[in-house]
Amino acid sequence: MTQTTNLSCLLYGPGKARFENREVPSIEDPHDILVRISYVGVCGSDAHFWTHRGVMRMVSEEQPLVMGHEASGIVHSVGPEVTKVVPGDRVAIEPGFSCRRCKQCKAGKYNLCPDMKFAADPPDNHGTLAHMFRTPEDFVYKLPDTVSLEESVLVEPLSVAVHGARLAGVAPGQTVLVQGSGTIGLLAAATAKAFGAKEVFISDINQTKLDFARGFVGCRSFMPDLKATHQQEAARMKEEMGLVEGVDVVLECTGVESSVQTGVYATGPGGVVVQIGLGKPCLTLSILDMCEKETVLKTAWRYAPGDYEVALSLLSSGRVSVKSLISTIVPFEKATEAWEMTKNGHGIKNLIQGVQDDGHNVIKQQH
Amino acid sequence: MTQTTNLSCLLYGPGKARFENREVPSIEDPHDILVRISYVGVCGSDAHFWTHRGVMRMVSEEQPLVMGHEASGIVHSVGPEVTKVVPGDRVAIEPGFSCRRCKQCKAGKYNLCPDMKFAADPPDNHGTLAHMFRTPEDFVYKLPDTVSLEESVLVEPLSVAVHGARLAGVAPGQTVLVQGSGTIGLLAAATAKAFGAKEVFISDINQTKLDFARGFVGCRSFMPDLKATHQQEAARMKEEMGLVEGVDVVLECTGVESSVQTGVYATGPGGVVVQIGLGKPCLTLSILDMCEKETVLKTAWRYAPGDYEVALSLLSSGRVSVKSLISTIVPFEKATEAWEMTKNGHGIKNLIQGVQDDGHNVIKQQH
Amino acid sequence: MTQTTNLSCLLYGPGKARFENREVPSIEDPHDILVRISYVGVCGSDAHFWTHRGVMRMVSEEQPLVMGHEASGIVHSVGPEVTKVVPGDRVAIEPGFSCRRCKQCKAGKYNLCPDMKFAADPPDNHGTLAHMFRTPEDFVYKLPDTVSLEESVLVEPLSVAVHGARLAGVAPGQTVLVQGSGTIGLLAAATAKAFGAKEVFISDINQTKLDFARGFVGCRSFMPDLKATHQQEAARMKEEMGLVEGVDVVLECTGVESSVQTGVYATGPGGVVVQIGLGKPCLTLSILDMCEKETVLKTAWRYAPGDYEVALSLLSSGRVSVKSLISTIVPFEKATEAWEMTKNGHGIKNLIQGVQDDGHNVIKQQH
Amino acid sequence: MTQTTNLSCLLYGPGKARFENREVPSIEDPHDILVRISYVGVCGSDAHFWTHRGVMRMVSEEQPLVMGHEASGIVHSVGPEVTKVVPGDRVAIEPGFSCRRCKQCKAGKYNLCPDMKFAADPPDNHGTLAHMFRTPEDFVYKLPDTVSLEESVLVEPLSVAVHGARLAGVAPGQTVLVQGSGTIGLLAAATAKAFGAKEVFISDINQTKLDFARGFVGCRSFMPDLKATHQQEAARMKEEMGLVEGVDVVLECTGVESSVQTGVYATGPGGVVVQIGLGKPCLTLSILDMCEKETVLKTAWRYAPGDYEVALSLLSSGRVSVKSLISTIVPFEKATEAWEMTKNGHGIKNLIQGVQDDGHNVIKQQH
Repeated sequence: MTQTTNLSCLLYGPGKARFENREVPSIEDPHDILVRISYVGVCGSDAHFWTHRGVMRMVSEEQPLVMGHEASGIVHSVGPEVTKVVPGDRVAIEPGFSCRRCKQCKAGKYNLCPDMKFAADPPDNHGTLAHMFRTPEDFVYKLPDTVSLEESVLVEPLSVAVHGARLAGVAPGQTVLVQGSGTIGLLAAATAKAFGAKEVFISDINQTKLDFARGFVGCRSFMPDLKATHQQEAARMKEEMGLVEGVDVVLECTGVESSVQTGVYATGPGGVVVQIGLGKPCLTLSILDMCEKETVLKTAWRYAPGDYEVALSLLSSGRVSVKSLISTIVPFEKATEAWEMTKNGHGIKNLIQGVQDDGHNVIKQQH
Repeated sequence: MTQTTNLSCLLYGPGKARFENREVPSIEDPHDILVRISYVGVCGSDAHFWTHRGVMRMVSEEQPLVMGHEASGIVHSVGPEVTKVVPGDRVAIEPGFSCRRCKQCKAGKYNLCPDMKFAADPPDNHGTLAHMFRTPEDFVYKLPDTVSLEESVLVEPLSVAVHGARLAGVAPGQTVLVQGSGTIGLLAAATAKAFGAKEVFISDINQTKLDFARGFVGCRSFMPDLKATHQQEAARMKEEMGLVEGVDVVLECTGVESSVQTGVYATGPGGVVVQIGLGKPCLTLSILDMCEKETVLKTAWRYAPGDYEVALSLLSSGRVSVKSLISTIVPFEKATEAWEMTKNGHGIKNLIQGVQDDGHNVIKQQH
Repeated sequence: MTQTTNLSCLLYGPGKARFENREVPSIEDPHDILVRISYVGVCGSDAHFWTHRGVMRMVSEEQPLVMGHEASGIVHSVGPEVTKVVPGDRVAIEPGFSCRRCKQCKAGKYNLCPDMKFAADPPDNHGTLAHMFRTPEDFVYKLPDTVSLEESVLVEPLSVAVHGARLAGVAPGQTVLVQGSGTIGLLAAATAKAFGAKEVFISDINQTKLDFARGFVGCRSFMPDLKATHQQEAARMKEEMGLVEGVDVVLECTGVESSVQTGVYATGPGGVVVQIGLGKPCLTLSILDMCEKETVLKTAWRYAPGDYEVALSLLSSGRVSVKSLISTIVPFEKATEAWEMTKNGHGIKNLIQGVQDDGHNVIKQQH
Repeated sequence: MTQTTNLSCLLYGPGKARFENREVPSIEDPHDILVRISYVGVCGSDAHFWTHRGVMRMVSEEQPLVMGHEASGIVHSVGPEVTKVVPGDRVAIEPGFSCRRCKQCKAGKYNLCPDMKFAADPPDNHGTLAHMFRTPEDFVYKLPDTVSLEESVLVEPLSVAVHGARLAGVAPGQTVLVQGSGTIGLLAAATAKAFGAKEVFISDINQTKLDFARGFVGCRSFMPDLKATHQQEAARMKEEMGLVEGVDVVLECTGVESSVQTGVYATGPGGVVVQIGLGKPCLTLSILDMCEKETVLKTAWRYAPGDYEVALSLLSSGRVSVKSLISTIVPFEKATEAWEMTKNGHGIKNLIQGVQDDGHNVIKQQH
């Protein structure tokens, strides 16, 4: 491997990506490490970037961005004060690191740090879709022997699910409704089960996804009737679930208003709704109904301290299995094909393989 | 006093009330007590009943309702197993009692009991606006010597404020925005201060009320500009407050959508908004903004175990003073005038005096 | 079945029990039910009563006591306001009911109610070792079809374990040390696993019990060396567990001082120790070590609202299986033999069958 | 002021201190700042060091230590990335900073960081009793105009009290027993009041201190009878306090076994005891009594994120006033006299003034 090249996949605009040999990042902080990327997962936001060049902040011709934020790899080199990993360690990468100094960081909520450096966040936080990625040692997690580098890419979305379940306080004896059966919904449902939920229900408007979800999670499913009112839907849900008062927890993974509304109506007294999915910036809620039963609406942002460790422990103990979610693995130079697949709804989790050998072959193929 | 008459004020429909001699309730459960009512407060919901004959459930000619739910009185007689009070004790009355057997009651959330018997709740839970009121001993609270029967009527709205502050977890060092400067807003702001909040801000569109609030609470105030956007308003609030990140807690006491929205935008990372005020059944929220800072929206319903005790301790210790909120005291037979005053925005808290002597004089005046 | 006889097994003093036909309890409160007892479990405290005639309060010739507090049965008759069960329902019985009116009851902590009526608590709270047992409907729990009447006797000790795990906040990702491998220890370890603990360790000085525990729970075990210091033991534990900082949670089920001390030393920073086992009234703790790592010591008393439901959900979902803990089932008239077995350490959970038919055959056998 | 000298007071052994011109620390991390020390407070541990040369780790002739950990000062210079303060700002100094990378730091518990660099902690974490002190910008707190540099020395012990009160969850409506009326006990009692406690009681075996405490806090006091049993003492306490069930919270600031035991017995059902005072490494607790009422014993270690901010807000709002606790202020070169005073129980909080001018005069006096 040549230290001086760091083949990376950059987005310049909608549908416009280029592979470039960038400089290999240098260890700057004594706690920094370099990770040689093994796999990068494609998530809905990648597909959205590919189409719209960003969410709130945008990439541009002048400020292209290395993509990728779900990743696993092998530690390549470490700074002088690194103690947690050694070169050769297989790791899951948490794709962001925080300032460590602000009120949120010190209070145990680094996901709310205003100076979070998150991978593939325009304009200048480059992502993991590269030969090498630099990060502080405490934001990578050594893989247990039983977890493969492919599976560990899924630790990122699993941590989103774990974060939601922990915010909700999912616990044994509870009933949990998960709305949406995309990757996050599937993992949220599996996580709720692993957290001991008595019963998990999953809803989605796509029957194929719902069928998969039922098998993947081992739970009952619910197909919304878009012509019914939210109250009617919630009432039907409760009846199908055999619940008199409603569910204890809703993990809302769609961000779609009708789904959120139905979810709120479906909760019982003192129930908790955690908004995990992002959709429209604003939505309407039945606040009076919420007040009468003291519904708590929590909102989730990425993952907080401990979430990655919990996610990894779910994988390594076999409480959650993600193998069946990996649909395709494309070579590094076909990254854009993986984005296309995800954009078109092909597959659940599509992976991009890291750069092979020294990466020269790849760059040749491109030109 | 004649045991066989129980002069009561009943609502039959919009603008239609009658004073009637009803039967004095009998002690049925060995823990029941009879309270001779001293004062009954008028709240916005009473005025709403007076105009619209109910909120969700309605009174009617066939099912008139004894009004009143904010009340104080003197224990008149007690059941054989009562140990907490004796006849002659001055008490604040919590205007509802729960089934004690359901999941919510046993979990410490009796305010969410589906079988709550709440005073003046149609069709058949009669209220406190009567000579005598029956209730279980554990839903009255003996008054400390320093708290008058007039003031103790305010324990009910103060408990609403206390409940909201406890849900929010208001604590020393925090900044708290209270929206609305009606009775609940005033008490919420005073409660937030008594809970140790570092700074309390209060907002209202009525300058007169805002001026009163500033003096009553000892806090800064904010006058919304209804022509600005919610984000602009929130930004102006933060600037006027000298806050970079936003407030820790919002106690929303208006139920008005624009107020809720501004409040949500005004919270800092991890902030908590407690919806106390009730307005339209549905309202629009900026869910994306909430997610990015993990705002928690809690909703408040009446008061839970311990709230009345805390409210009374705030009064008896002088941490909150309610004397200046009592605007008028009308005799029992002029109850409807008190409702009119409240309906027309005259006064903050208008009280109705309990039946005097044996109440015969009053009933004569009516006919 | 004859309504007028209620064959019961009463303790009169150490080693002195008698079977007597007592009156069948009558439904007094409209929410009361009568349960025909199917099985009664024997716990260590029963054996202790059998030997020492009580723990803090004693039975006597003048005040004999119907024994038994772990029980299942079939609903025989119900009061006029009962809605939760109907005659014929199979139920697990929570062996105590609270006053519903005190501060603790209303705050969701009925296990701390000073007026708790607990089964087989001298002098006059008779137990479940009888043909019929009266209790309020909300302290029995309808059995799911998948849970047998024999197994459901174990819901009582399982609820003790659940209560401890909930107090500790056992959650996915955590490491949990359970001390003691008696019934409670075994169930605490199984519960910790069901709550998602990453790793569970169990310790006991009895190798046979430890071997059973390892298989029952599916966890690693630790055999204390009574000649080593507490610190040495804790250090060895951590090394065997592969933990650098110590465990997150200790569920202490022995009440033995050396065990508690070792447990405290074995916790990591911010760890929680829940004292479930009862032993000597006083014991010595390493408070300085605790302060330096902010150990939290919680103490557990029976079970609180929701614990029985959670325990039942663990059984019905198969997350915890108790079948292998049931060692012997003796007929009703041989109850004292079951106590003897438990006293002598024979078996894990010994059950006493309820009265058969109309009970006449049994009483004849005795005389 | 000469940048090259940094007059400091070092401890070499019991009763052996020297003033030396050490090198002025340089800004190493871009977030570092240099503070010119204004005042240093003397705490019991300083007096203990002065007599015994350390607590667990010791100073020595070979490894002398700059003393001092309660301090205020004026920012002298700042690193290139400092944004929170500018030279000239008056600040309270939190005398320790953590690694920011370990599990505890990231979970919001930096007080449990194993790599905490705490001021005046042997062998090589030098303290604040020097002309200049270097620290990261996020561990100093800009003083409000209303708080003097003298008072702000007390922010350190006040933060200890705040930490204990926050651990206990002291809230309006509660009854709180504070044991010990030294500096920490006084501040714990005042803090409990500022947190809204309904009633605060303070106990101490020294009548003079108790008399002061009563006036300082505005609370009732309790003089232990060392000949009575712990139970008798607790019973007498409850009677004097007019409490049936016991206190909600105990803030134990003595570390003395008899005090802890009495405190535990004095708590009511579900009460919380926070161990703040440190004494003997081990002590005996009435675990059975604790179990029966589910007492929670928490242990406190220094202060956690947010405690300093809360402490400062209590001072700046006037909820807690510390002026009357400052007994003496000695010049820098008489530091050992301040230690002697504290050792001999003279005064509550004795302060040492920072180095004057350029410090040359002082060093001359010494030689």
